[in-house]
This record gives sequence, C-alpha cells and structure tokens, in this order.
Amino acid sequence: MNAIDPLSATRARIADAAEQLFRQVGYQKTSVADIARECAMSPANVYRFYPSKSAINEAITHRLLDTVASELEAIAAGRGGAPRRLRATARHLHARHIELFFAEKRLHDMVTAAMSEHWGVILGFIGRVLAVWEALLREGIAEGDFRKHDPVATATILKNCMMVWHHPLLIADCLGHGRGVEELAAQQDAALDLLLAGLAKK
Amino acid sequence: MNAIDPLSATRARIADAAEQLFRQVGYQKTSVADIARECAMSPANVYRFYPSKSAINEAITHRLLDTVASELEAIAAGRGGAPRRLRATARHLHARHIELFFAEKRLHDMVTAAMSEHWGVILGFIGRVLAVWEALLREGIAEGDFRKHDPVATATILKNCMMVWHHPLLIADCLGHGRGVEELAAQQDAALDLLLAGLAKK
Repeated sequence: MNAIDPLSATRARIADAAEQLFRQVGYQKTSVADIARECAMSPANVYRFYPSKSAINEAITHRLLDTVASELEAIAAGRGGAPRRLRATARHLHARHIELFFAEKRLHDMVTAAMSEHWGVILGFIGRVLAVWEALLREGIAEGDFRKHDPVATATILKNCMMVWHHPLLIADCLGHGRGVEELAAQQDAALDLLLAGLAKK
Repeated sequence: MNAIDPLSATRARIADAAEQLFRQVGYQKTSVADIARECAMSPANVYRFYPSKSAINEAITHRLLDTVASELEAIAAGRGGAPRRLRATARHLHARHIELFFAEKRLHDMVTAAMSEHWGVILGFIGRVLAVWEALLREGIAEGDFRKHDPVATATILKNCMMVWHHPLLIADCLGHGRGVEELAAQQDAALDLLLAGLAKK
C-alpha cells in the first residue's frame, strides 16, 4: 500500500485495528462495530473502505501472507547451496505457521475463515512458495547439487509431501493429537533428509 | 467376530443395518430408532448391544479399517520387490480412501465422527499401516533395494509425507479445491518416485 494515498492509509489503519482485535478477541467474536470503535470511526465509515468483515480479513490475510512470502524469497536469495536454502525455506514456512496457529491461537479462526472465503489469496501465496522452490530446484540442478528433473513438477511434489507441516488444518490436527511443536519440526527435518536424498545427484 | 456366539451375531447384524443406513442416509441423519426398525427390534434392544449410536459407529469403523489393513498386509505379503510392494500399498490405501470419501460421500460424516470420537480405533489402524511399511523397508534393506536406514523412523516419515493422499480431511480439501481423482493419484505416484529415489541404494 502507498502511504501517501490517504484512502490507502485509512484502509491500512482499519486493517491494523482489526488485526489487533482478531488477535486479542478472535475473528468470530469481533464485529465491524468493534473495529470502528477502535479506529474512532462510525461503522458506516468503515463500510466505505471495506464492504464486510470478511473483506477486512481478506486484506489482513493478504498482507500477512505477503510478508511470509517475502521472507521466503529473501531466504532463497541468501547464501549457501540450493539444498540448504530449500530446507531453510521449508523450516521458516513451518515455523511461521506454528507462530500464527499455535502461539497465537486466536488467529486460527481468522485464517480458517480466510481459507474458506478467500481461496484466491491463499492460492496466490501458494504460487509464490512454489515459485521459490522451483527457482531453488533449477539452481540446484545447474550447480550439480540435484539430479536432472522437472523443477515445476517437483515443486508441487514437495508442496504435497510437506503439506502436514504447512497446512493450518493439519498442523492443528497434529498438535491436537499430542504431537509437540519440537517433534513436528524434527519430523519435517527428517522428511527433508529423505526428499533431498531423492533429489541428490547419484 | 465369532459367528457362533449369538451375541456377536446380533451385534454384527445391528452393525450391518447401521452401516447400510449410514451409507444411504448419512451418519448424522440416522437415529438409533431407524437402526432398530431396520433390524425389526426395539431401540431398547439395540441399546442392550451398543450403548450409543457412537458405539455402533466405532464398531463399523473398526471392522472397515480392519478390512483395509488386512488388504494392505496381503499386498505386502505378495510378490515383487519391496519398493514395488510399498508403492502398491500406498496406492491401495489412497484408492480405498477415495472410494469411501468420494464415491460414497455419505460415509464421510461417519468417518469424521469416528476421527473425533474414536481416535483409538484410528490409531490402531495407523499402527498397522506403519507396521506394513516398516516390514517392507526392512525387507528392502536386506535385499539391497534400499540403503541402510532406520525402518521405524522412515515408516513415520512416509506416513507424514503421504498424509495428503491418506488423510480424509485433506483428501476432501484437495477434491474440494478442484483437484481431480486421477490428478491426485498421479501426484501420489510422482511423490512415491521421489521418496523411493531417496531410499534407493546409491
């Protein structure tokens, strides 16, 4: 968003207040009236900027996922071999999910709502994650770390195989069935060992 | 169940009638009174055999998963190299899930209820799947198809990496987001290529 544009600035201010409330009170329990009060506005004024609470959630989810995707892109652009950076992006993605859905349980219903109402936003995020992995796979092939394969297809395979560590529903399910946060992270590392061994040049 | 024991026979008859209704009408919409009517019994008589509808579901889920686990054990005991049999068990497990949760959509709420109410039954099933994979991994190491590794740990890694094809919630999620049945199966095969490459002897 462009901070010079006063409309965008107000949209951002409303999203900030809403995100704060979603974190403190939860998505379902927060009303547009609550958000308006927090911004010292009338609900009617909030509706000038967002047609619904769901639209505010869409904006928050979009910028949250935009931040995470940018972090992954920064890790991918960093130093070290492609296999190491690929592992680092998967670890980071999992750690960010844990932060959002475990440390901040109240954000869970916001994200669940976003996943059912704003699949386009989620799809855009998945696309950026896949692009990061594709680029790293391509680089790893060029550098001789990985055997030759189709990086586009393999990025999707990696996404599917690491779903349990990157899908909010499944993370919640794992934690709900008694797997600890450290156990989950260690299991992802073990899976990455196997997946990277499958990609390695023989 | 032992068919000679009249109590077990009646329990099985109630379970059969209930399963039929769950398939036709759905788990949530079937009452114990409906099941009793189907068996030409009084509801009170049904309650002598099962304390609740949930207990009937437990029995049905148990025998359903027992059948699937036995099928997997039969495939694992079959012919061909360990990698080939491992792939066949994963394919079969996925195909059975698709059958249950896609072809017979009405069984979906029964299984969802079982997953939240009878986790012990699900856990027992997961244990048998892991045992099948452990045995195949051990065999593959002994036969020189797989490099040396810890088969117990690797069976869990395989379970985690193939969750998207074997977890009812995720299968429903994938199909709900437009992935087709054939696409899902092809993606599992591609994932198995990568996972088996990671296990292969260099």
